[in-house]
Amino acid sequence: MNVRPTISDLALNAGKKARLFRILFQHGLCNGTGLFLPYDQGLEHGPRDFFANPDATDPGYIARLAVEGGFNGVVLHVGLAEKFCWDFAGEVPLILKLNGKTEIPSDAEALSPVTATVADAVRLGAVAVGYTLYVGSPAQAADIGQYLRIREDASRLGMPLIVWAYPRGAAIEAKGGKDSFYAVDYAARVASELGADMVKVNFPHPEKRSGVPAAYDTDFSAQQAMDAVVRSANRTLVLVSGGERAGDDAMLEKARQSAEAGATGLIFGRNVWQRGHDESLKLVTKLQEILVKYPGQSIESFASRHGSFGEKMFLSS
Amino acid sequence: MNVRPTISDLALNAGKKARLFRILFQHGLCNGTGLFLPYDQGLEHGPRDFFANPDATDPGYIARLAVEGGFNGVVLHVGLAEKFCWDFAGEVPLILKLNGKTEIPSDAEALSPVTATVADAVRLGAVAVGYTLYVGSPAQAADIGQYLRIREDASRLGMPLIVWAYPRGAAIEAKGGKDSFYAVDYAARVASELGADMVKVNFPHPEKRSGVPAAYDTDFSAQQAMDAVVRSANRTLVLVSGGERAGDDAMLEKARQSAEAGATGLIFGRNVWQRGHDESLKLVTKLQEILVKYPGQSIESFASRHGSFGEKMFLSS
Amino acid sequence: MNVRPTISDLALNAGKKARLFRILFQHGLCNGTGLFLPYDQGLEHGPRDFFANPDATDPGYIARLAVEGGFNGVVLHVGLAEKFCWDFAGEVPLILKLNGKTEIPSDAEALSPVTATVADAVRLGAVAVGYTLYVGSPAQAADIGQYLRIREDASRLGMPLIVWAYPRGAAIEAKGGKDSFYAVDYAARVASELGADMVKVNFPHPEKRSGVPAAYDTDFSAQQAMDAVVRSANRTLVLVSGGERAGDDAMLEKARQSAEAGATGLIFGRNVWQRGHDESLKLVTKLQEILVKYPGQSIESFASRHGSFGEKMFLSS
Amino acid sequence: MNVRPTISDLALNAGKKARLFRILFQHGLCNGTGLFLPYDQGLEHGPRDFFANPDATDPGYIARLAVEGGFNGVVLHVGLAEKFCWDFAGEVPLILKLNGKTEIPSDAEALSPVTATVADAVRLGAVAVGYTLYVGSPAQAADIGQYLRIREDASRLGMPLIVWAYPRGAAIEAKGGKDSFYAVDYAARVASELGADMVKVNFPHPEKRSGVPAAYDTDFSAQQAMDAVVRSANRTLVLVSGGERAGDDAMLEKARQSAEAGATGLIFGRNVWQRGHDESLKLVTKLQEILVKYPGQSIESFASRHGSFGEKMFLSS
Amino acid sequence: MNVRPTISDLALNAGKKARLFRILFQHGLCNGTGLFLPYDQGLEHGPRDFFANPDATDPGYIARLAVEGGFNGVVLHVGLAEKFCWDFAGEVPLILKLNGKTEIPSDAEALSPVTATVADAVRLGAVAVGYTLYVGSPAQAADIGQYLRIREDASRLGMPLIVWAYPRGAAIEAKGGKDSFYAVDYAARVASELGADMVKVNFPHPEKRSGVPAAYDTDFSAQQAMDAVVRSANRTLVLVSGGERAGDDAMLEKARQSAEAGATGLIFGRNVWQRGHDESLKLVTKLQEILVKYPGQSIESFASRHGSFGEKMFLSS
Repeated sequence: MNVRPTISDLALNAGKKARLFRILFQHGLCNGTGLFLPYDQGLEHGPRDFFANPDATDPGYIARLAVEGGFNGVVLHVGLAEKFCWDFAGEVPLILKLNGKTEIPSDAEALSPVTATVADAVRLGAVAVGYTLYVGSPAQAADIGQYLRIREDASRLGMPLIVWAYPRGAAIEAKGGKDSFYAVDYAARVASELGADMVKVNFPHPEKRSGVPAAYDTDFSAQQAMDAVVRSANRTLVLVSGGERAGDDAMLEKARQSAEAGATGLIFGRNVWQRGHDESLKLVTKLQEILVKYPGQSIESFASRHGSFGEKMFLSS
Repeated sequence: MNVRPTISDLALNAGKKARLFRILFQHGLCNGTGLFLPYDQGLEHGPRDFFANPDATDPGYIARLAVEGGFNGVVLHVGLAEKFCWDFAGEVPLILKLNGKTEIPSDAEALSPVTATVADAVRLGAVAVGYTLYVGSPAQAADIGQYLRIREDASRLGMPLIVWAYPRGAAIEAKGGKDSFYAVDYAARVASELGADMVKVNFPHPEKRSGVPAAYDTDFSAQQAMDAVVRSANRTLVLVSGGERAGDDAMLEKARQSAEAGATGLIFGRNVWQRGHDESLKLVTKLQEILVKYPGQSIESFASRHGSFGEKMFLSS
Repeated sequence: MNVRPTISDLALNAGKKARLFRILFQHGLCNGTGLFLPYDQGLEHGPRDFFANPDATDPGYIARLAVEGGFNGVVLHVGLAEKFCWDFAGEVPLILKLNGKTEIPSDAEALSPVTATVADAVRLGAVAVGYTLYVGSPAQAADIGQYLRIREDASRLGMPLIVWAYPRGAAIEAKGGKDSFYAVDYAARVASELGADMVKVNFPHPEKRSGVPAAYDTDFSAQQAMDAVVRSANRTLVLVSGGERAGDDAMLEKARQSAEAGATGLIFGRNVWQRGHDESLKLVTKLQEILVKYPGQSIESFASRHGSFGEKMFLSS
Repeated sequence: MNVRPTISDLALNAGKKARLFRILFQHGLCNGTGLFLPYDQGLEHGPRDFFANPDATDPGYIARLAVEGGFNGVVLHVGLAEKFCWDFAGEVPLILKLNGKTEIPSDAEALSPVTATVADAVRLGAVAVGYTLYVGSPAQAADIGQYLRIREDASRLGMPLIVWAYPRGAAIEAKGGKDSFYAVDYAARVASELGADMVKVNFPHPEKRSGVPAAYDTDFSAQQAMDAVVRSANRTLVLVSGGERAGDDAMLEKARQSAEAGATGLIFGRNVWQRGHDESLKLVTKLQEILVKYPGQSIESFASRHGSFGEKMFLSS
Repeated sequence: MNVRPTISDLALNAGKKARLFRILFQHGLCNGTGLFLPYDQGLEHGPRDFFANPDATDPGYIARLAVEGGFNGVVLHVGLAEKFCWDFAGEVPLILKLNGKTEIPSDAEALSPVTATVADAVRLGAVAVGYTLYVGSPAQAADIGQYLRIREDASRLGMPLIVWAYPRGAAIEAKGGKDSFYAVDYAARVASELGADMVKVNFPHPEKRSGVPAAYDTDFSAQQAMDAVVRSANRTLVLVSGGERAGDDAMLEKARQSAEAGATGLIFGRNVWQRGHDESLKLVTKLQEILVKYPGQSIESFASRHGSFGEKMFLSS
C-alpha cells in the first residue's frame, strides 16, 4: 500500500490549498477523502444517458442529489452552473468543467475544446476546475497548448486543477486500448508531469495486453496495477472514475482497491444517477463506508510529520 | 407538459434580463412568448430563397413585414443591419446574427465563421445576438472555441445569446440525420450545457431512427420528442424553427406542439416571407393565435412563485 | 430598372461618407458614377499580363494613365502604392488592395491572404480599401475571419470597403462556375450581408446553368441577370468588372447593361491597359460616354428625396 | 538597358534610407552597388555545404572573409549573429535573416518559419533584414501572413527589408520550375507588389519553358530575361543570387548581365566560401571589377535629376 | 581536438552568464564541465521506463540521486518541479523542460508542445530551460514558431536555453535516420543558427549512411563525427546524450570521445537511474573521472586569453 500524499505535500499556493482543504476536509466525510458527482455527460454523450432515469435530465435533481448524498463536489459545465448553481450555492462544492465535446464525430484525433475559463469558475464560486486531457491523441499538441493556458490561470487564481486524464485516439487503441494498465498508468503520469493537482483516471485493466509495451505484457493483478498508477501520479491526488454503469459488487470492489492503493477519492456519475433516487443514495452510503476506512492525514498532524520545513521528505515507493 | 422556465429562472445578469424582458414582454404578444423573423438566408442559401417572392430580396420589405406582423424580433447579418436598421430602429427588436457561411462548399466539416461581434450588436442597438453552433461537426473544436469568445462578450455586455443549435456534418448524417430526435435532443442539450440563453432547434423527427443510439431507436410521438427536447434544454428557453417552407396545417400543428411542450417561441422565416405580403401576415396571425394560448409567467407573479430567494427551486421533469 | 442607392442610403459614418463622396462626386465625371483602374494583376497573374503592352509593367505608366483618363480611382497593392503614390498623390484617388495571392498554386481552396492593413491605407492617403472574398471557397472560414478584422478597422477609420466578391473553388466549379448567374448573384449578396460598402462583381452569365440550383436553371437575359445582381446587393454599391480582355463592342454593351441595372460604376483593368496608350484613353472616353447618361442622385437632392429622417424608406425592387 | 532606381526613388522613411545609404554608399565599392555574403546555408542545407572548405564551418572565418573582401553585408541567422557579430561589429554591415528552415522535409508546400524579429535586428545593430518568401507555394497564405507582420515592423523601425523571392512548391515545378524566366519574373514582381525594398532573385533561365504560360513560351536571351525581371521589380532594388557553385566564367558573365540589366548588386555565398581563402578573395575582386563599371547615381545628383518634388517621374521602361 | 568555447565566447547577457556560471563552475566538478540528469521520460515514454528500477518512479528518489551524485543539474517538467523542487531547492540546479509529448501517436510529423513558460522557470528558481526541437520534422514551421517565443522570453529573463536538437520525422528516417552523422551534425547546427546557448545531441553514428547526402556517404570514425558535430555547433556548448541504456564500456567510451571533441558535458538519464542506487552512483563517478580530465577554461583566465575586447577572436576549426 502506498502512502497517500497530503495536500501539504503538493506545495500548493494559498488559494489552491484553501480550496482543496474545503473540498476534502469541510465536505463529505471531512476526512481527506472525496466522493464526487460528475454531470458533464449531457455534453459528452447527450441526453441518451438520462433515459435510464429521466429525473436525471434535470440539473436541479442532480444538485439536490449531491446535497443529500453528502458529495464533496458536483461537476458541471458552465451553462448548467450558471443557471442552477445559485440554487445550491454553498451547500455542495462546484467543480467547473472547463472543456468538453460531443461524442458525435470520430474520436480518432480527439480534442476537447475549452468551454469556459478559470475566471468563470471564480465568478461562479467554484472550488476547483476540471480539464480533460486526451493522452496520446494525435491532437496532443493542441490539447497541451490549451491546457497550458488553463494551468497558468488556475495557478494565478489559486484554483485547484483536476485533470481528466483520458487515453484516447487511434494510436492508443492499437496499444491496449484506453483502459489498459499501460494507458491508465501513462495518463496518470502525464497529468502529474504537466502539473495537475488531482487526476481522474479510469480503473486500469492489466489483462488488456494486446499491443502494450513489453513492460506491461505480463501478469499483474488489478490491485498491483492500481498501486502502480497511484505511484506514477506521485504527489498528484488520484480520483478513480466509475465509468459506465456496472454491477454494484464489482464497483464497490474497485472502489476499495482504489482506496487501498492510495487514491484520494472516487468520482462516480452514471453509476449513481442512472438508478432511482433512493437507490442512488444507498450506493453513495456504501461508497462512503469504504472511504471512511481510509482517512487522509488530518491537517493537524502535518507539523508533526514533517518536522521543520528544511527537512527532506521523500515518498516511499 | 413541461413548465416553461421564466426569464428569472435563468439567473441572468441585469443587461441580459432587461433585453430579454424587452423582447418577450414589450413586443409581439407581450405575454412571454416570442415570434421571430429570421432573414439570414441571403448568406446561408443565397438569393435563390427569394425567387418565390422577389419582394423578399429587399431587406426593407422584410423589416416592414416584421413591424407590421408584430414580430418579437428580426434576425439580420451585420451588413443589412447597418444599412437598414436605422429605418426601423426601435419599432422591432434587432437580433444580430454573429456568424454565417454560404452553402456552396461541403457541409461535411461544417463551421460557421464569425461575421460580427457582440460590440457590433451593442452599437446597432440590438437586443440579442445569434450564433450557429454546428453540433457534432468534426470542426467542433474550432466552433466551440469561437463560441466561447462570444459567450464571454455577451455576458460582459449583457446581451442575450441565442444559439442556433444545428446538428451538422458527416457523422450526424450517419446517426439519424440532422433533424432526428437524437440529433435535435442532443443539440438542445449542448446549447444548454454551453451557456445559451435561448436555443433555436429544428422540430425533431422521432421516426428517423437509422443509426441512432439504442435509447432513441424506439417509438416516440412527435409530441413526446418535442417534450424531451425542451426538458433537455432545461432552463434554456427554446425557439422552434420553421425550416423549409411546408404546408400550413403541418406547420401550425408543429407550432402548437412546440408551445405545448414548453417552447418559448417560434422562429419562422421562409415559411413567412416566401409567400405574398398579405398571406404572410395571415400566417403570422395564425401563429400568434397559438402562442396567445400559452402565455409565459408574467414578471409580476415571480415573487409569489418563488417566495424568498433562499428557497430551493427545482423544475418538475 | 432599379433605383440606384445613393451614398446617403448606406447609413455610413462620416469618414466613409466623406471619402465615398470624394471618389464619386469629386473625381471622374463627378456625377455619382465611377470608373476604376485596377492594377493588382502583377500579384494575381504575374508580369505575363504586361506582355501585350510592356509599358504597363511600369506602375508609373499606369498612374499617369489614371490621371489622364480621369479615373475615379486606381487600385494598387501596398508595395506599389508606397513607391509610386507620392508621384500622383491627390491627382487620382488611391484604393489600396488589402489582400492578394499568386495564381501559381491550385484555386480549389482559394484564400487571399492579407497583404496590408487599413492603417496602411490611411498612411498612404487612400480613399478606400479593397478586399477579395472568395465566395464559396472551402477556405471560407479563414476568409471571413480575416475579412471581419478588416471590416472593423475600416469602420473605425472611416474607410470605404470595396469587396471583390469572387466565387471561387472546387464547389462553385461544380455548380455553374465562377461567372454563372447563380455564383455572381450569390456573391453580390454575400458582400452585402457581410457589410461591404461597394461590391465588385463579374458580369453574370445566365446561360451557364450546368449544376446551378433550380431557381437559376431557366432562361434569363443578361439584363435580367444584372438587374437581379444589383437588387441582391441592395444598398451596397455595385461595380462591374471588365475581366479578361474582350472585344470592344461586347464590353461596351456589358457596361451599358450594368449602368442600366443600377450599378454605380465600372472597374476595367486589362481591357484598358493591355492596349496602347492612346487606344486606352479612347476606350475610357467611350465608357464615360455611357456613365454620363446614368448620373447618380446628386447630394443636394438628398433632403428633398427623404423628407425627414423619421420617414420610412424602402428601395423599390 | 534599364535605368536603375536610386534609393531616393523608393520613397523610404528616414531610417530605411539611412541604413540603405550606409550599405550601398559607405561600404564595399561605395558606389551604390552591393556585393553581399549570405551565410544562412547552415540552417537551409546543413553542414554538408561546408565540406568543400571546412574552414567555412566557422562563422568567424566567414565574418573575417566579409571584412577582408569588402562586402557590403553579411547575412546571418540570429544565433550566429548573437554569438559572432560583436567580433566584427561596425566593420561589415549585418543583414539579419528573419526566417529559415531545414531542407529535410518536402518542399512541396514550402514555408519558411520566422526565426527572429526586426527588434532582434535592431538590438544586434543590423542594417537590414532578410525574409524568404516562397512564391507560389501552396502555403502562401501563411507565408504572406507572417511577412506582413515583418513588413510592418521593418517600416516602423526603419529597417530595410530584403525579400528572398524564391519560387517553390509542387505547382511551380509543373510550370517551368523554380528558376524559369516565368518563375523568377513573377517572384520579382511579387516582392515589389508586397513592399520589399530589395529583392533577391535567382538568375532566370528563359530556356526552361515546359509548362510556362504562353507569354513565356518563346525565345528570350538571358539578357532579355534579366532585363525584364529588373523591370518587373520596378523601384525595388534587385540583388542576383549566385546559387549553387558553378564555373567562374559562367558566373562572372551572369554577374555582368545582371549589372547590365540594372540590378543593384550580387549576393554570392557558396560560390565564394566553398573555395579556399585566397581564391575566395580573388573571385570577389573579379566581381567588384564588374560592379565598379555600373555605379549607381550618387546621392548628390539626386536633386538635379528630380528638380522639384512636385515634378512627375516615371521610369522609362 | 577542438577548442571548447568558454561561456564568455557566447556573448551572453548578464543573467544568462550568471546562471551558466552557476551551473558549470559552482556545481558538480566546478571545472566548466557538466553532468546532467534528465528526468522527463515519464512524459516522453511513460512509466514503462521505471520498471527496470521502480524506485525511479518517484521524483523524490531522482532528486536525492542528483544531490548525492553531484550532478550539475536535474531536468524536470513543470508538474514535478512544482511538487518536488522545494525539497532540494538550492542543492542541485533545476533545469525546467518547457515542452514535451507522449510517445503514443506517430512521430512522422513530430511536434513537442509547450508545457511551461520561461516565467515558470524563473518562479521555480530554475537556472536554465530546455526545449526539444524536432529538426527536420514536417511540423518544423510550428516548432520553430513556438521556439522563437521561448528564445525571446529566455533572452529577456536571462535564462540559458538548452535545445534538445532531435532529428525526427518521416523525412529524416529516409535520410540515414535520427542518429546518423548527417542528422546529428545538422541538428547541432540548427540549434546554433537559431540561438541555443547549449545543445543536447545524440552521439552520431557515421556508419548509418543509407540515404544520407553525398558528403556524409564516406568513412568517418566516431571521433571524427563527434569532432565535426562540435564544430558545427561552434559557440553553442554541446551536451551529449546517453540515450537508451547501453553497456558501460561503450557508454564511457562515448563520453570520453565527446569530451575529447570539445563537448562541454554529458546528459545521462536512463543509463543512470535504470540501475540500482549504488550502481548509479558508481557510474556517475566514472563519468566524472572522464570530465575532470577536460576542464573548461576557468573564468579567471578570460581576460588574459582575450586581451582587450576589441581584439578579434576566431575559433580554430
